[in-house]
Amino acid sequence: MATPNLLMIPGPVGLTPEVLRALAEPQRGHLDPVFMQSFSSALKRLRVVFGAPTAQPFVLAGSGTLAMEMAVANLVEPGDAALVVNTGYFSDRIAAMLDLHGATVTQVKAEPGDAPSLAEVERALSAQRFKVMTITHVDTSTAVLAPVKDLAALAKQYGALCVVDGVCSVGGEALECDAWGIDVAFTASQKALGAPPGLAVLTASPRALEVWKARTKRVAAMYLDFAQWLPIHQAYEAGTPSYFATPAVNLIMALDVSLGQLVEETMPKRVDRHRTNALAMRAGFQAMGLELLTKRAEVTAHTLSAVRYPTGVDASLVKHVAAEGVNVAGGLHAALKATYFRVGHMGSASKDALRTTLSAIEKGLATAGHRVTPGTAVAAFERAFG
Amino acid sequence: MATPNLLMIPGPVGLTPEVLRALAEPQRGHLDPVFMQSFSSALKRLRVVFGAPTAQPFVLAGSGTLAMEMAVANLVEPGDAALVVNTGYFSDRIAAMLDLHGATVTQVKAEPGDAPSLAEVERALSAQRFKVMTITHVDTSTAVLAPVKDLAALAKQYGALCVVDGVCSVGGEALECDAWGIDVAFTASQKALGAPPGLAVLTASPRALEVWKARTKRVAAMYLDFAQWLPIHQAYEAGTPSYFATPAVNLIMALDVSLGQLVEETMPKRVDRHRTNALAMRAGFQAMGLELLTKRAEVTAHTLSAVRYPTGVDASLVKHVAAEGVNVAGGLHAALKATYFRVGHMGSASKDALRTTLSAIEKGLATAGHRVTPGTAVAAFERAFG
Repeated sequence: MATPNLLMIPGPVGLTPEVLRALAEPQRGHLDPVFMQSFSSALKRLRVVFGAPTAQPFVLAGSGTLAMEMAVANLVEPGDAALVVNTGYFSDRIAAMLDLHGATVTQVKAEPGDAPSLAEVERALSAQRFKVMTITHVDTSTAVLAPVKDLAALAKQYGALCVVDGVCSVGGEALECDAWGIDVAFTASQKALGAPPGLAVLTASPRALEVWKARTKRVAAMYLDFAQWLPIHQAYEAGTPSYFATPAVNLIMALDVSLGQLVEETMPKRVDRHRTNALAMRAGFQAMGLELLTKRAEVTAHTLSAVRYPTGVDASLVKHVAAEGVNVAGGLHAALKATYFRVGHMGSASKDALRTTLSAIEKGLATAGHRVTPGTAVAAFERAFG
Repeated sequence: MATPNLLMIPGPVGLTPEVLRALAEPQRGHLDPVFMQSFSSALKRLRVVFGAPTAQPFVLAGSGTLAMEMAVANLVEPGDAALVVNTGYFSDRIAAMLDLHGATVTQVKAEPGDAPSLAEVERALSAQRFKVMTITHVDTSTAVLAPVKDLAALAKQYGALCVVDGVCSVGGEALECDAWGIDVAFTASQKALGAPPGLAVLTASPRALEVWKARTKRVAAMYLDFAQWLPIHQAYEAGTPSYFATPAVNLIMALDVSLGQLVEETMPKRVDRHRTNALAMRAGFQAMGLELLTKRAEVTAHTLSAVRYPTGVDASLVKHVAAEGVNVAGGLHAALKATYFRVGHMGSASKDALRTTLSAIEKGLATAGHRVTPGTAVAAFERAFG
C-alpha cells in the first residue's frame, strides 16, 4: 500500500509514533489488566483535557455524531424546548437531532462564516424558557469559532443546560467545562485529541446527570442511554470492570497514549500552540492572496482554516495539492462547498507539516493557474513566529 | 507494556499479523483512495461471509449491541409484535431492546444451556402474527447454538421477518442469509471475523429494506437510521464516497484484511475448521472430567465452549489459567456465572493455541486442587483429529 499523503484535513489527523505504536500492539481482551489501566487512565485524563474535574467522562465505540446524539437523547424529553446557536452544518445536525428526540427547537442563526451575536442569543433566551442550549464550538464545515465562554454564561443566567459540540475544538481550543458552566461537552477521537477515528467522547456535569436521572421517559435507544454506560465507566475507572458492550480496546489504548501527550504538553500550552500555528497559517494564506470563509478573527477557529478559492480556481485545487503530497479537504457547507477548501492544523501537526502544507497549496494554486511567487506563503508563515 | 496472554476468550480474539499490520499503518483520511478501496472491498466481502449476495451490508463505528439496536430500530415500530427465540443473555437483551422500541414482545424460552424446540417456536408463530422473529445464533453467555436454518424457515412460513444475532457466529458457524431467508443478520468485528473491536456489522435483505422504507414513524435515533447510512454505504462501495459521520478508518482497513483471509480460506472450509476444532476441544475438556454447560451436542456452538467448573473448583480457575499465560473468560449468564467458564476458539486460533489452552486449563485445575494426569487433555485433543 502506498504511503498516505501528509494528512492535513480537519480530522482524522496524523498520529504520533507513540499513538500508532499503541494501535499496533497485539490484541488484548477487555478485561486485560493493561487495558483496564489504560481505560481508567484515559477517563481521568479526559477530565483534564475537558477542564471538567467534576464531570463524568464517557468513551464509546462510535463517531462524534453518536456523542452528539448521546447528549441530546439523555437530556431531552419530548416537548422540551431547546435553543440552537447555529453556526453551520453541525448546528443544523444537532437541531435535526433535537427535533427527532422530541424537542421544540428554536434557532439563532448567523450568515455562513459568522456566529450570532451574544445580544441575539440573549434575546432568544429571555423570550422563552429553554431546557437546553447547544453551541457548536468549532463548526468543522466553515471553521466558525463560537464564543463558548460568554454563551455558556448566558445559558446559565437563563437557566438552560449548556451543551457544547466540541468535535473540532476539544484538545485544541480553550475549553473549561467546569469553570464556564458547561453541562455536556463531546468530541470524537480523530480530531484535536490526536487519536484514530472510532470513539465518541463525552463528559456530563453532575447537573446534567441529575437532569437525566429525573427523566420521566426512557432514553430512545439503549446504546445511547447513560443508564447502560454510567456503571461501566465508573467500574472501569475504579479498576473493577463491568460489562455492557465490548469496548474498542485498541482505540482506547491509543486514545490514552494521545491524552497522555496532551496532558504532558499541558492544555494552556497546547491551546497557545494551536493559536500561534493558526495565526501563522492565516499569514501564509493571506500572503498567497487567499481569503478566509470566516468573517472576523474573533469567530475564526484555531484548529482548522476554511479558505476561499481565489477567482479562477475551483475545487480541483484539492487534487492539485494532493498531487504535491498533502491532503486538504474540500468544502462541506451545502450552499458554499464549491467555493472553499479546508486545512486542518490541529493535534500534533508540526511546524514542518504546516510549512509543507503551505508550499503544497502554493504549488497546487500554480497548477490551477493562480501564480504566487514561490516561497511567499512560507516566508509570511515564518515571520508570524517572529 | 507486558505482552498480553494468549487471548482465548469469546472475543476480542487474537489478530493475524496481517490484520495487526493494517492497524499499524499511518493514519489515512476517510477520503484517501486506499481507504476508499478498502471500505468498498470490505462491504463486498461481507456479502460472501454472510452468505448474503443480495443484501446491503453496513459497517459502523460501534459494538455488536449497536448493530443489534440498528436491526431493532429500523424494523420495528411501536405496536409491532415481535417473537424472541430466547437462548440466553443476549436474547434477553434483544427482548429488552424490542420493548424499548415499542414492540409487543413474546418470548419462547429454554432452560439455560438449551434452545427451545422447533415445535415450541412454531406454536408461538401459529398463535399470533409477528412482524419480526429474532434468533441468537450463538449465545456468547452460554455457548448455545440455535438451529437458525430451521427457525428461519419457520419464520418465513409464518410471514415474520427473521433477524439473526450472529455476534458470536458469523465467520465461524454455517450461515447462509440469502438461502435461509434471513432478513437481517449482524455481528461485531472482534468475534469470528477476526478484527479488532469497535465495529458494528449488519446486513439487511431487500425485504428488510422494503419494510424499513414503508415505516410510518421515524427511526428513534439518527445514528441508528438506515436513512443516514444507506447512501453512505452505497457510495463507498461504488468508490464515490459521501459523508455522514467519519468512518473508523483504521478498524475498517483491518477488517477488510481479515475478511480477505476469510474469503481466501473459503467459508465452507472455515466452518469445517471451527467444527473440527470445537469437537477436539470438547474431547479435551471431557478427558479432564469437565462438563459443558450446553445440554446437547446439537445446541453446542463451535466458536466457543462454556465449561462447568468441576466440584471443588470455583471462578478463581480463570486466574490460575491466566497465570499459565492464557486468557479464558468467566461465566456471563446471571444465574449461573459462578459455575462455569468460557473458552473462545474462533477466528484464526491455531491448533497450537488450542493445545496450549488445554494445557493451561489442565495446570490451572491442578492449582485449584483438581488433579488431572498431565497431558490427558492434549492427548484426547490430538486423537480427535484422527
